[in-house]
Amino acid sequence: MKIYGDRISGNCLKVKWTADHLGIPYEWIDVDILAGETRTPEFLAMNAFGQVPTVELDDGRHLAQSNAIILHLAEGSALVPEDAYARARMHEYLFWEQYSHEPYIAVCRFQHHYLKTPLADLDKEKVERGYRALDTMDGWLADGGFLVGDAVSCADIGLVAYTRWAHEGGFELKPYTRVRAWIGRVEAALGIGD
Amino acid sequence: MKIYGDRISGNCLKVKWTADHLGIPYEWIDVDILAGETRTPEFLAMNAFGQVPTVELDDGRHLAQSNAIILHLAEGSALVPEDAYARARMHEYLFWEQYSHEPYIAVCRFQHHYLKTPLADLDKEKVERGYRALDTMDGWLADGGFLVGDAVSCADIGLVAYTRWAHEGGFELKPYTRVRAWIGRVEAALGIGD
Repeated sequence: MKIYGDRISGNCLKVKWTADHLGIPYEWIDVDILAGETRTPEFLAMNAFGQVPTVELDDGRHLAQSNAIILHLAEGSALVPEDAYARARMHEYLFWEQYSHEPYIAVCRFQHHYLKTPLADLDKEKVERGYRALDTMDGWLADGGFLVGDAVSCADIGLVAYTRWAHEGGFELKPYTRVRAWIGRVEAALGIGD
Repeated sequence: MKIYGDRISGNCLKVKWTADHLGIPYEWIDVDILAGETRTPEFLAMNAFGQVPTVELDDGRHLAQSNAIILHLAEGSALVPEDAYARARMHEYLFWEQYSHEPYIAVCRFQHHYLKTPLADLDKEKVERGYRALDTMDGWLADGGFLVGDAVSCADIGLVAYTRWAHEGGFELKPYTRVRAWIGRVEAALGIGD
């Protein structure tokens, strides 16, 4: 498998962590988003949306959308709960991440940390919704553990990616003690540092 | 099963269509978004985000996020392809819908059709991205059929919900002949009219 990705993208790292955790061999191909490398004709032939991550499976077929990719790689592994309801909860978190978390926390981070937009100039609604996402997660994580049951799953991989970088978007994580403890547990379970 | 939903919400109808198509018995409980019924203490006790659709399964447990719910209901049915790659493509479409389609097409529709925002006052970026989503879909649907293979799947249910109502958000569907033909095929396959 080839993973086309940019290490500044949490969406791309989700795929890397999943493959590393499951021992799936891959070749990592750096695609520099900021340098426009997702907009070249070669890249667009592979992924018409010009998005990373994109994976090329061993049979030459492609797949996009970080959460769809990690679900595919993890199928049949311990990263996907066997119980149908737990699996549904995992999907719930992954859809919530793309709708109610990533568009605020990851976008603020990209604008502030990479495009150097001053914090005061970030879209106030995005900042507010980012904090609402963190509040929500802090509620979920009330009793420790992982998002779905007692083991790390694709839900944690999907949500930790940008949560652990939220400070780079100007989000103050200090009050979110449960979120910070969970980030530590997920990082330890996946063997990722900073 | 109880489905808490509002019939003006495509996300809610996804769940209804899936249950109807699969013959899963349910009680539909109307929740009026515009009247604030997703913000009552009773509703928030069931779904802390105040969102519909929410389902209460027969064992009393709840599930939210339209696409997570339809995947759960459809598990093991013909709405979920057996082939692992086809299943991954279905997930790809469902995540794309929540990230690149719903926030533009459904939001413009809600603002124009229900909140009576004049078309000229809609957020121009949302309109542009909505059209980009329609362009993308028209490309996918080049060779007819359904989104994943030859049969209707959860991917079609997820994407048809707001695409068939795009005109209510001011989107001109006439040039999108492939999208319109596909809407007709999905409606026929699901037995839904307007």
